[in-house]
Order: sequence, then C-alpha cells, then structure tokens
Amino acid sequence: MSKTPALPRQEDDFPGWYNDIVYRAELVDLSPVRGSFVLRPYGYALWENVQRHLDAMFKETGHENLYFPLLIPMSYFEREAEHVEGFAPELAVVTHAGGKELEEPYAVRPTSETLFGVLYSKWVKSYRDLPLLYNQWCSVMRWELRTRPFLRTTEFLWQEGHTAHATAEEALAETRQMIDIYARFAREFGALPVVMGEKTARERFAGAQKTLTIEAMMRDGRALQSGTSHFMGENFARAFDITFNDVNNQQAYANTTSWGLSTRFIGALIMAHGDDKGLIMPPRLAPHQVVLLPIYRAGDDAGKAGVLDAVRRLAAELRERGVSVKLDDREELSPGRKFNEWEQKGVPFRVEVGLRDLEAGAATVVDRLTGEKAQVPLAEVAAGMPGRLEAFHDALYRRAEEFMEAHTYTAETLDELAEKVEHGFVWATHCGDEESERQIQELTKATVRCIPFEGPSAEGTVCVHTGRPSGYPRKVLFAKAY
Amino acid sequence: MSKTPALPRQEDDFPGWYNDIVYRAELVDLSPVRGSFVLRPYGYALWENVQRHLDAMFKETGHENLYFPLLIPMSYFEREAEHVEGFAPELAVVTHAGGKELEEPYAVRPTSETLFGVLYSKWVKSYRDLPLLYNQWCSVMRWELRTRPFLRTTEFLWQEGHTAHATAEEALAETRQMIDIYARFAREFGALPVVMGEKTARERFAGAQKTLTIEAMMRDGRALQSGTSHFMGENFARAFDITFNDVNNQQAYANTTSWGLSTRFIGALIMAHGDDKGLIMPPRLAPHQVVLLPIYRAGDDAGKAGVLDAVRRLAAELRERGVSVKLDDREELSPGRKFNEWEQKGVPFRVEVGLRDLEAGAATVVDRLTGEKAQVPLAEVAAGMPGRLEAFHDALYRRAEEFMEAHTYTAETLDELAEKVEHGFVWATHCGDEESERQIQELTKATVRCIPFEGPSAEGTVCVHTGRPSGYPRKVLFAKAY
Repeated sequence: MSKTPALPRQEDDFPGWYNDIVYRAELVDLSPVRGSFVLRPYGYALWENVQRHLDAMFKETGHENLYFPLLIPMSYFEREAEHVEGFAPELAVVTHAGGKELEEPYAVRPTSETLFGVLYSKWVKSYRDLPLLYNQWCSVMRWELRTRPFLRTTEFLWQEGHTAHATAEEALAETRQMIDIYARFAREFGALPVVMGEKTARERFAGAQKTLTIEAMMRDGRALQSGTSHFMGENFARAFDITFNDVNNQQAYANTTSWGLSTRFIGALIMAHGDDKGLIMPPRLAPHQVVLLPIYRAGDDAGKAGVLDAVRRLAAELRERGVSVKLDDREELSPGRKFNEWEQKGVPFRVEVGLRDLEAGAATVVDRLTGEKAQVPLAEVAAGMPGRLEAFHDALYRRAEEFMEAHTYTAETLDELAEKVEHGFVWATHCGDEESERQIQELTKATVRCIPFEGPSAEGTVCVHTGRPSGYPRKVLFAKAY
Repeated sequence: MSKTPALPRQEDDFPGWYNDIVYRAELVDLSPVRGSFVLRPYGYALWENVQRHLDAMFKETGHENLYFPLLIPMSYFEREAEHVEGFAPELAVVTHAGGKELEEPYAVRPTSETLFGVLYSKWVKSYRDLPLLYNQWCSVMRWELRTRPFLRTTEFLWQEGHTAHATAEEALAETRQMIDIYARFAREFGALPVVMGEKTARERFAGAQKTLTIEAMMRDGRALQSGTSHFMGENFARAFDITFNDVNNQQAYANTTSWGLSTRFIGALIMAHGDDKGLIMPPRLAPHQVVLLPIYRAGDDAGKAGVLDAVRRLAAELRERGVSVKLDDREELSPGRKFNEWEQKGVPFRVEVGLRDLEAGAATVVDRLTGEKAQVPLAEVAAGMPGRLEAFHDALYRRAEEFMEAHTYTAETLDELAEKVEHGFVWATHCGDEESERQIQELTKATVRCIPFEGPSAEGTVCVHTGRPSGYPRKVLFAKAY
C-alpha cells in the first residue's frame, strides 16, 4: 500500500496544512465547476449540526423560515447604489432559459436584500404588520477569482435573515441581538472565542449603515470574520418602497436588517482548532463525538465475536445517552490506519476495545485534544461520556482563548503594528479616516477587523498612522484577515 | 373593511379553488421571477416538517446527506443520450459570471445525476467502496412554460438521492426500498393513500431503466405523481465511467439509482385534503396542530387578563406534550375573522377560551375536519390532544381512501375509459405499445399512471385500445394527471 505523504506542519506551512486537511478528512472534494466544492458527508454533517442549533436559536427569538427564489432580476441590484457597486462584479448571470434568450437576465442570488425588499413592500401596510422576522437557509453565488474551500467559494451555503421594523431603535436592537446570537453560538457550540464589534465604514456591507461582526483568531494569527449583522436604516426601504402607516396614521419608511452566517464558519472551526495531526472537532458540532474501534486478531473468530458484541452494546449505551457514535468495524483496514483516519478527522474521543481490554472488563478511551489514554471500566464508559465531552468542549475553548490572548498585542506606532500583526491581533488607535485605513492596509496588509464593543480605551492616545485624535472611544482591532 | 370574495367551491371550479387557497392561506406569494414563487412561512413550515420526518427515514436506512454544486457544465448533459433529450429544453443557463462571458456555459441543475456520475467515478474504485448511499436537499430549476404553485414551477425544492451499487439486484432493491419509504411517508405523515407501481417506458425518467412511482388522487379525481424512484442500471455508470474492481478483481460497472420527492408533495396534500372552506392539514406535518383563541369583550380588562392567563397556561401544557401550538392573541382582529383565517389555513383543532368557558372551567374544541364542537374541561384539553390528533390523522386518511375508492373504476372499452377517467382513476388492460399509449392520451387526455404492484389481474382480458393481449400481468392505472 502506498504511503501517504505527511500532513504539512502548521508552523511550516499553514495554508498547505489547510489545503491538505480539508481533502484528507473528506470534508470536501473538487468539483468540475470553477471554485465550487462538493461538501462530502463528513463536511456536510458539520453544516447540518450548525443549522440545527442555530436555527433553534433563531426560532427561540421569534424568527420564522421561508424560501425566496434563487434568481433575481438584474435591474433590482441597481436600485440601491452601494449595493450594486458591491455585488455587480461578482454576479453569475442566467441569460438563456428554456432554449431562448431571456428579455431580462437574472442573477443567481449573491444575497437577497433586493428580493426581500420587493416582497416586504407588498407585505407591509400598517405598523401592525411589523416586525417581519424572517430567515432562509440556501445557497448563494459570488464569482470570486481566487477560491479556497469554505473560505472563499463561488457557491456557498448560508442563512440570511431579513427583518423589517417600525423604528430605527427596534432594528438596531435586532441587529445587536443577532450578532449576540452568533457570538453565543460560536462560543457555546463551536468552542470558538470571538471579538465582537462594529465594522468601519470601509468594511461595511454594501448598502448598510452599520455592520456588526464576530472575528475569530485562526492558529496562524489571522482573523476570520465568522458572522455579520447589518443595520440598513431606511436605505433598502427607500429603494424598494417599504412604507407603512404608523400608529399616528402617518406614512413612514420601515427600518430593515439582515444577518448571515455561512459555511465559512466551518473554515473557522478547522483553522482555530486543528493541530499538526489534523482536525479537532468541537463536540457539540462534531459529526461523530465518539468513534468505537473493535480490535482483534485476524483468524480469531471467537475473539472477534466477543469484541464486536461488546462494542455494539457500548454503541447502543452511548446512543441512549445522546452521544453520537461511529462504530468502525471495517475489516479491510488495520487498527493503525483507523487510528490515523479518526485522529485526522478530529473525533473527540476514540474508544478501543480489544481482547485484553475485554478480559480486564475495560476499554481504552483516547482524548483527541490531549492524546491521553485512559483505561475505563466498560460499564462506566457510556455514563462518563457526556461529562468527558463537556470537559473536552471547555478545554478546547480555553485552548483557543489562551492562544488568542497570547497572540494579541498593542501597537503605538505603524512599524510596531506592521511587525506585530504578522503574529496575531493588534489593538491600536485609529483616527477613523478611510484613506488612512487603505494606506495602512497597503503598508501592513492589516485591516481594521472591528471597533470593539469591549476593549482598551483610546483615551489620551493618537492614531497609529496619522497622529490625529482617535476616531472612536476605543482602540480598534487590526489583523491580517482571511 | 372590504369583504373578501368567497373561495370558489371545489365542485364548481377546482383549479380556481386551488389557485385561490394557496395565496389566501399564505402558503406562497408571487415573485418577480417568472414561474418561481416565494414560499411563505406557513408554506415553508410544511416543507420543514416534510424534511425532518423524511430525512429521519433516509438516515435510518443508512443514507447520508451531502451537497453538490448548483451549476453543471452544459456538456455533461450530453453524455447520456436520453437524459439530454429529456432535460435540455428546460435548462436555465449561466453564460456570464464575474463580468465575463464563460468559456463553457453552466446549467442551473435540473437534477444532478450527471454531477454525481463524475464524482462517483472518482470515489468508487473497489467493491469495498460500495454501496454509496447519498442524498441532498436543494433547489432545482426546470424552465416550464405553464406554471402553478407547488405543481409546476421553474424553481422548486426537493431532495435527490443518488446511490451506486455493486450489482443490479442491490440497486433494484434500493429503488424499491425508496419508493416504499415514500409510500409509507405519504400514508403515515401526509394521511395520503397512494397507488404504487412502475411507470411504462413512455413515462420513465430520462435515462432510467425502471421508474417506480406513488400516485395520489386529488379531490377532482386527477392523479398527482408524488414521489419517484429510478433504477438506472449501468446507463449512467457507462456514461460517466463508474467502474470498480469486484470481489474477483474483475472490472465492472456500478449500478445506480436516484429518487426524489419535491414541494409538489405539498400540492398533493392541499388537493387531496382541502374542502370548500380551505385547507385541511394532516396533523403530523401541520405547521400548527392547534390554534388557541382567547375570547373577551373589548374594554373588559379583568376578563381579558383571566382569559389570556388561562390560554397561556394551556399553550404551555400542550407544548409540554409535544403539540405544536399557535396562540393567536392579535387584538386588531375579531374572533370571527380569526375563526375564518385558521379554518382556511386548515389547522386541525381550534381551541376557544372565553369568559363563559372560563366560568365553566371548560374550553371549546373545534375539529376542522368534522366541524364538531366539544366542550372539554380545561384540565383535560392538553391530556386529550395527542389522542385527538391521532384520531384526526386516521379520519383524514380514511376520508381520502374512501374518496379514492369511490372514484376508481374499471373500463373494458376506450369509450368507457374516456367517460370514466373524467371522474377518477380507471383500471384497464393495455397492450404495452407506446404508440397506443400516445393515442389514448390524445383521445382521452388520460395517461398510464403506473403498472401497479398490486391490483386487478389482466388475465383473460384484452387491450382497451388495440384489442391485443395485455402487455402486463395486471391492468394498468389510467388517470388524467397534474
């Protein structure tokens, strides 16, 4: 059997590590469509778990799902000036259908603000019709030139929430509520610490008055924007005529929001948690929380039967306790090959049951994060597993948090910013000027990831670039970003 | 307030009834995209319930979900001769992307056999890699000229399963297993009786060797194909080179299947169960199983508080028992308007709590199917509801089954077939000749819905059209179809 070359070490070649592991762990495969990837079952199962938990959080906060068409008339994009500027260059366009050229071409949706605008205009007549709190799970298309699995792809899966409100206050509260939900989801399900804040005008969504973001740190020190929530003010309401009679029977424009989290989030999980051996799955989103490996000698039929029987009983016990289990009873692979495969795929716990284990009434439980092996009485494996998974989640979160803290710096000068941003996040004061932001990016490759909700005060400091007074109450977060 | 015109009676104008109720019940809305509809929350919630239950049935039988790209290179369709002939006229084509004309245009997927073919060819090397049992939930596009919500739309939601097997026997068993699952799903969740069978060569899926179908009867006597499962034999394996080394180390072609159920199924639920008052939702798929209406006099604040309190407690009790509940506490609508709305939306049970009910410690429970009102002690409403919902499901199924039985006939002559098929399903003997099938359709508008798995024997009878011997062991099912 041919030996597979080793996975690149993260320290030596982080992009190479990423590009290798997404295929080796069978998360994705190449497709014949430029920049689009097949999400294989192990990758898609992660997304299904993201959907399940995040969707429950949306519904708890009063949102309903619906489904809007995939195609959008091209002319709609032009109704909101900034929106068209942001999206027009990336559109994929349907010009022919049913064997004929279309009178007006359609874009494959890159995002659906415009189409929601048209329908919201129809659905909203009175303040009693508000708020509209809707979301859809779908795929979108943005024709990117340089693509990487999960991070930047011509097609990706996401959810897009679109809400309409009677007042700016309500819409702002919704915008904030949704970024809070994303942050809670990242932390509680993805074991992913994030910095929350607002985007500068330069980094805002095309057409938004305010964009809120959660930013996570990858293990190469770069930032990955993992979810965003936008306050549109009346921009889209004016472009699409979303008006209503308010309580005083005066006509008013609605205030709208939109918010989205995509399969990019899976890229964040991979790069924030993985190590040189491969993926490390956060237990609450892991496709399999535990893999069970029966170990026996070829030819020893009695031994095999006993081991398989014990492992099957264990699988049933674990499932009864709500643990998701993969029983790997493939005969054509050696235990060593299986260890490697599941280690690479990042299953939190591997439980081995061999003949000697069975005689001792025990199983070997191996922790993917620490590599520690524990001999655990067979009768206690299932009962102890939920607790082990919780502890695994906490340890994974702590590891990511400590990494982020250890790689977060402060800079007083541009040189310092340029040097430190090679290693992680940098807090620095900025004047708020867009042209200065652009120049900093040109000089250092760093962008302002956010003006944080919480973070070091800018009081008494000056801009790291222009020397002018701070444009914000706090220092802003600079980083090189995906 | 303007009075809404009455819903057309089914008997007078069934198409008008359908076209009215889908909008009035807020299942769909028009969109600016020709032939595509917005699935509103009440309609999409039905689809979410279809997904949840059907997906569980797929997973129980060993299938995994994944996600394939939306776009398919146009040239792929040409690899399987019948497939291209079937789908080419309906394709929507992306010719430009990222501001440039594409070298090779892409089709928006109308179905994904071709793309699965390409990847399966890569994934399958040895018999050990088989079977592949995959499914995806997605949207597809077929550019139809005449469209109707749910029944025929340029874009629709569905699931498409694609499997590959080492032998034809295994693939045939899978094909049959999946149509069995669709039939069980239709009956157990949709309260929808179906006739199961095989399509004639004329009605087969483009590229299939065998297409199995479930056919349901609508309340105008027409048939609606509600799910199909296709055995491809080696057709797609040969077109896409899906080969493997078998147990004897000989190269062999895989046998593939595909199977799908779409939002058409919602059309079937609407037209098989609805009545002159509107929809009737099958309880196991209903967005709301129970609607709670608090009834009080405007101005009576104490009365209102008491009623609202009782209704809220009842909602919590019902939810605890797993009943999905809508509490309609809108103040701007009269109870009468609410009755009408929820009746039209087909919620199985309406529970009213008014001041007089409260004094009597009771609630009024109204059954959407029978219209019967029962005074039920408040303390017993929640405990009794799961049983009421089961009984509702059974009664709805029986009603549909009795309707189908009462509208199923036998014909010995073409005239008889032509006359009876105006009223429902007709069993008749057919010779199996494709040209004869075409002529029968021309003369009667009826098509062969299926060669049934179970049904009246054709022994000793001759073709209703040609007088030749029967082409099948049983009589076939003729109907006018959606």
